[in-house]
Amino acid sequence: MRYPLIPVILVLLAVSVGFAYIHWSKSGPGTGLYSQHWEPDPVQGYWDPANFYQSPDSIQGVFKGEQCVQCHEGITPGVVSDWRASRHAQTEQTVYCSACHGEDHQKLYLPTPDVCGSCHEKQHGEFQDEARYGFPSHVLAMERAVNAPHFVDKPKAEVQSCIQCHSVATKCDSCHSRHLFSAAEARRPEACITCHSGPPHPDDATYFASAHGQLYLTEGKEWDWSKPLTKGNYKAPTCAYCHMDSGRHQVANKSMWKFGLREINPHTSKNKVLRNEWIKLCSDCHKEDQARRWLTEMDQERKQAWDKLYAAEDILKDLRSDDLLTPAIDERPPYPLEQHAFWDRERIGFFEGQASAFYNVSAIERDYFEMWYFDNLSSYKAAAHGDMKRVKVGHKKLATSLDRIKTKASKLRTLSEADQNKKNAPTPSELWMKGAYTDYNREHN
Amino acid sequence: MRYPLIPVILVLLAVSVGFAYIHWSKSGPGTGLYSQHWEPDPVQGYWDPANFYQSPDSIQGVFKGEQCVQCHEGITPGVVSDWRASRHAQTEQTVYCSACHGEDHQKLYLPTPDVCGSCHEKQHGEFQDEARYGFPSHVLAMERAVNAPHFVDKPKAEVQSCIQCHSVATKCDSCHSRHLFSAAEARRPEACITCHSGPPHPDDATYFASAHGQLYLTEGKEWDWSKPLTKGNYKAPTCAYCHMDSGRHQVANKSMWKFGLREINPHTSKNKVLRNEWIKLCSDCHKEDQARRWLTEMDQERKQAWDKLYAAEDILKDLRSDDLLTPAIDERPPYPLEQHAFWDRERIGFFEGQASAFYNVSAIERDYFEMWYFDNLSSYKAAAHGDMKRVKVGHKKLATSLDRIKTKASKLRTLSEADQNKKNAPTPSELWMKGAYTDYNREHN
Amino acid sequence: MRYPLIPVILVLLAVSVGFAYIHWSKSGPGTGLYSQHWEPDPVQGYWDPANFYQSPDSIQGVFKGEQCVQCHEGITPGVVSDWRASRHAQTEQTVYCSACHGEDHQKLYLPTPDVCGSCHEKQHGEFQDEARYGFPSHVLAMERAVNAPHFVDKPKAEVQSCIQCHSVATKCDSCHSRHLFSAAEARRPEACITCHSGPPHPDDATYFASAHGQLYLTEGKEWDWSKPLTKGNYKAPTCAYCHMDSGRHQVANKSMWKFGLREINPHTSKNKVLRNEWIKLCSDCHKEDQARRWLTEMDQERKQAWDKLYAAEDILKDLRSDDLLTPAIDERPPYPLEQHAFWDRERIGFFEGQASAFYNVSAIERDYFEMWYFDNLSSYKAAAHGDMKRVKVGHKKLATSLDRIKTKASKLRTLSEADQNKKNAPTPSELWMKGAYTDYNREHN
Repeated sequence: MRYPLIPVILVLLAVSVGFAYIHWSKSGPGTGLYSQHWEPDPVQGYWDPANFYQSPDSIQGVFKGEQCVQCHEGITPGVVSDWRASRHAQTEQTVYCSACHGEDHQKLYLPTPDVCGSCHEKQHGEFQDEARYGFPSHVLAMERAVNAPHFVDKPKAEVQSCIQCHSVATKCDSCHSRHLFSAAEARRPEACITCHSGPPHPDDATYFASAHGQLYLTEGKEWDWSKPLTKGNYKAPTCAYCHMDSGRHQVANKSMWKFGLREINPHTSKNKVLRNEWIKLCSDCHKEDQARRWLTEMDQERKQAWDKLYAAEDILKDLRSDDLLTPAIDERPPYPLEQHAFWDRERIGFFEGQASAFYNVSAIERDYFEMWYFDNLSSYKAAAHGDMKRVKVGHKKLATSLDRIKTKASKLRTLSEADQNKKNAPTPSELWMKGAYTDYNREHN
Repeated sequence: MRYPLIPVILVLLAVSVGFAYIHWSKSGPGTGLYSQHWEPDPVQGYWDPANFYQSPDSIQGVFKGEQCVQCHEGITPGVVSDWRASRHAQTEQTVYCSACHGEDHQKLYLPTPDVCGSCHEKQHGEFQDEARYGFPSHVLAMERAVNAPHFVDKPKAEVQSCIQCHSVATKCDSCHSRHLFSAAEARRPEACITCHSGPPHPDDATYFASAHGQLYLTEGKEWDWSKPLTKGNYKAPTCAYCHMDSGRHQVANKSMWKFGLREINPHTSKNKVLRNEWIKLCSDCHKEDQARRWLTEMDQERKQAWDKLYAAEDILKDLRSDDLLTPAIDERPPYPLEQHAFWDRERIGFFEGQASAFYNVSAIERDYFEMWYFDNLSSYKAAAHGDMKRVKVGHKKLATSLDRIKTKASKLRTLSEADQNKKNAPTPSELWMKGAYTDYNREHN
Repeated sequence: MRYPLIPVILVLLAVSVGFAYIHWSKSGPGTGLYSQHWEPDPVQGYWDPANFYQSPDSIQGVFKGEQCVQCHEGITPGVVSDWRASRHAQTEQTVYCSACHGEDHQKLYLPTPDVCGSCHEKQHGEFQDEARYGFPSHVLAMERAVNAPHFVDKPKAEVQSCIQCHSVATKCDSCHSRHLFSAAEARRPEACITCHSGPPHPDDATYFASAHGQLYLTEGKEWDWSKPLTKGNYKAPTCAYCHMDSGRHQVANKSMWKFGLREINPHTSKNKVLRNEWIKLCSDCHKEDQARRWLTEMDQERKQAWDKLYAAEDILKDLRSDDLLTPAIDERPPYPLEQHAFWDRERIGFFEGQASAFYNVSAIERDYFEMWYFDNLSSYKAAAHGDMKRVKVGHKKLATSLDRIKTKASKLRTLSEADQNKKNAPTPSELWMKGAYTDYNREHN
């Protein structure tokens, strides 16, 4: 080879340009991959305090903790009364407001996880550790949200409603509500379900409908929530008992099913290890073989769900191969951030993941998306949490969705054939050109 | 002018006839504008006791309070036990049954708000005062219901189900359940949500899904509900804390958004005053600027919702101008009370307000109605109460509804053009006259 | 008659063959009429312990109760702590683990109702007694499930989700959760609604939305649940208070409406007696005539619902007579267990009851099924439990469903006529044979 360094130089150049581009992307007033393209709303100061919180400058002065309390006793008595009831106010070395918010009233800050972690090292470390298990994740929730192209493209009010929950990554009071920061509170399901509810993850509904949830609802108020989440302390488990057993501040190390978002093989050696951890946990109350059977039931549910999902996916892939999806590619709305892309992205949606699935897709792709994201995930959660009625309803819905996709696909094919025949047919009369026939085809093809 | 008194006399005559007609309308056995046309069901004696309650005549005699208690201890021990636990039984001057129900057992009555108000003047006065803020309103709820034309026209069982909640206007135990009449009970959200739930006003779901609601659900049972609804007394607010702050017995004086039923301009000077009252209230717990930001978020949500609603409305107005709504006007079912009207009412529904919207409308008008009444109102409530997931889901639904309306409108236009072309076309063959073509058009135009 | 014994012999033969067939049907490894055709999943050992429980054989030995406790204190401390809190551990003659599970660790069993009934005779007797009132029933729930043909035919995961609730027949801890077996717990609605929820029987939602339910939610936690379910003990009733009054362990003897599944005549002399029992019960708190009025309201609601249901049914019957249901009979999927049937079953679904309704039916039959099973039953439950909003929403849905059925039926008829005309028309051109016209008809007829 004559110029052996040329490919090396080209690669080095390309890599440098790539890094420069990412660096430029992130150099906007916001954070993340698209920060050039958006500005934070003021309310985000609360959800992502490290990046966006702005201290009020109305009060001047540097104050000691006792002074904070003195003034705020009158201004915000609720806050002070919660703090007084908290362990922060009851340890020997009182943790005053200033410990978490600073002393200079014009440079106040909201505590980030790092601030809390400076004392609560173990919990903070566990929480950060979740990152290595990938998504879905608490600690990556905010990052993942602002790095999604639709974060910039969607209407602000909608995006805001997303990141209120995703802010679990950037502050601790999503679970330990301020200023009591009670562990007992966070042990209860309500701490989780403020976020873990709604169509794609009805964790609340499925848990509360289960025998576990009903026991909590009946008697939970009388349980002693100051006890740690370990064997023998609670008549029924809550979210945290199973997912954060022994109070571990990350939920990912035992996770096999990845929220039901993709099929997993329960029989890999890694998953066998994880399954045994689940069974060990269930054995706090149940017989081991009984627990194992339940999980086998859940395997069956998952198998059935994926059979239906793959059947639907195959239909859509065939339609795509035969160019029968409508709207056609060039009739679709632009992809999020298209105007900032180096080249046009392919506008066929449903394989490009969740971001595109909400956008430029045809009716039949949306059916598939909803089948996957709503019917499937709700069946999965129901099976996992023991809500048998939602397993049944979910599978009824999966079957109905698959039927709908089959019907629509067959219609698209029929009308496409009709259209083909029409093209090969003798020139139709004036009547045909303007009448219902043409319009019908125009509309349905 | 030759006969200058003629127009004056005509006007006087018309006004007299008008009054006479309204007087006649109201002269039926029921109450309200259409009382000629309906008869109360016996159960309404309980919901509108002033007008319809009938004392049982089985027991004869005039009894003192102590005697009521003596007998009812055995007959209805629950009632007596509730009363004993109430303040009525524990003040120095015991308020016996007879104080509210009368002493003559054949002329018993159920206490109306006036009866309660004879002691609880302040609360009664505040409640009555709500009337001057217009609808939606508690104190006007019953009147508004029986004055709606569909009150007469709808099936009885459906109307009954409406006025059970609307009876909040005509009795006090909608919120203070008898015979404890506890203030502590009425301070809790359950007192409100017996009525404030369901599709057009999911106040319960949106509140409980919020961080406020989850705090209530987790710890509310342990709060001291005997405390007044003022700063520092509760870790999280409930319905009454915000809407009836300081225990004021009307919710309208701070109301800006009118339930989300119509667009409001948040920047009028009046609304700036109201907004500041809200912010002052939020400041019981939150920083003022934070509260202001939240309300700005809500403005944005409202703006987005109304953009979509107006887009839909414009489409419908155009269809109406072009006479493309189907069923056509003369194919629609009669308007409620048509047979009693002086002249035929226009049967185009959706602009005539809520009453007609449930009735004689086309599929596309109903889509608009449901978009406005369900998707819009639920997004509004979600934004107001801090239920971010329902904001997101609501706007997804608003977008889907708008899509559906666009598609249907375009279909109506396409088929109308096709129909027009057909009319101008050469006479079709026998085949066309009887075949699918004709039927297809007949069905779709 | 020459051979008078021939018919007698034939009948005897037929009866014998019938019995033999049923006997053979039941001779499989499972139970019930189709036991030849299915095998239990291991998890069923827990739901139907009498038939399927298999003792673990890991531990050898025969143990006294005290020994059970000693070991299980460490292995399953939650179970032991519940048991210690139970009356079983607190009576003079302690009821140890072994009393219900046996002593030989390799031959342990799960207690069936008979085991519990050996001490709790009254309750067991009452529970068994429910059988004579027919279905719906608790005590017949399991039998009914496994005797339904779709039990065998449906995917296992779906069937499993059914029998978890139906197992109420075969074990007592559906209501009295182990190992506390608390009567207080079972008196509360949560004990019932683990099963009594979901689309066809939203008992939970309708109760909680009622004034009764809201009272329970507000104050129920403070009530003294150790008190029996009798007059004067509770401010508001729960499921058990009304349906199992005085703690009677069967709910059927007062049942008139049979779950809303079929129309009943409220005026039969038997139903008058039953109604009076309801009114007597309501009179624990309410005035008798008021209670009677409520039930009259409910009669009206039922009447209205059945008017709509019959209108829909008539439309479907006419379509069936005219052979207009599509898919046509021979296009339908096979009936459950068809391959085991002596002769082909008729594949027209909706009159053959619930089993077939989920299967081989046309879109319009499914609409009817959902109208009957979901809209109707939810309206009924709402009327019965006092959830007025769901009465209203339910009847709105019933009306919408009826509209949809009318529209579909009229479309089927129109297109059938079009098809008829086409058949009688002159031979169409090549264009017609292959074009949209033909496809349109093929698709819509």
